[in-house]
Amino acid sequence: MRFDPASLKYDDRGLIPAIAQDRDGAVLMMAWMNAEAVARTLETRRVTYWSRSRAAFWVKGETSGHVQHLVDLRVDCDRDCLLLIVDQTGPACHTNRRSCFYTSVLDGEETELTKPMV
Amino acid sequence: MRFDPASLKYDDRGLIPAIAQDRDGAVLMMAWMNAEAVARTLETRRVTYWSRSRAAFWVKGETSGHVQHLVDLRVDCDRDCLLLIVDQTGPACHTNRRSCFYTSVLDGEETELTKPMV
Repeated sequence: MRFDPASLKYDDRGLIPAIAQDRDGAVLMMAWMNAEAVARTLETRRVTYWSRSRAAFWVKGETSGHVQHLVDLRVDCDRDCLLLIVDQTGPACHTNRRSCFYTSVLDGEETELTKPMV
Repeated sequence: MRFDPASLKYDDRGLIPAIAQDRDGAVLMMAWMNAEAVARTLETRRVTYWSRSRAAFWVKGETSGHVQHLVDLRVDCDRDCLLLIVDQTGPACHTNRRSCFYTSVLDGEETELTKPMV
């Protein structure tokens, strides 16, 4: 079946959440896409989000060099969330960690799981 | 550091996206939590979402038996997204597939990666 980005369900801002997972299984980050970002990501294989704070396209790694090369794009059963399988160059997180999910919460305490890369 | 669910950043509906990942690495689904769902999940170790369509707490697997036992809860760098590491009993998806992300999109075509469990 042909894929049409317009067939996805976007929220009232026209956005859909996109989870980036490294091909080795690590969940790296979650950000947002609009229909044009989905189309650009599929066309270029360079993951492109929509920055809500800057209200602009955000080609991941364009300034940092920490690019995400698209390996596979997956749509969920409700068509309202995306899972991007990527090859991540360098850290995905702006704190210079591989993953943004470096804080663990269990038994009421926060624990930092990883330190920034040097 | 003590964790307080009120320290997370919720959207204008009071919700935060929560990604469920099986401990073996498979990304299973994404759903939403409010602060009380976060607190209940940490307290009971039974993953509890907020159902936007039903406007009610949704203890995952309460009717189907396909429960998610919380192994770890991770907060991202911006504190506006959660990653739940879970032990998933049975399929996570309402279509009876293990993961909701069973549709692959590449080269303009949709491909079904997995069939429902029997």
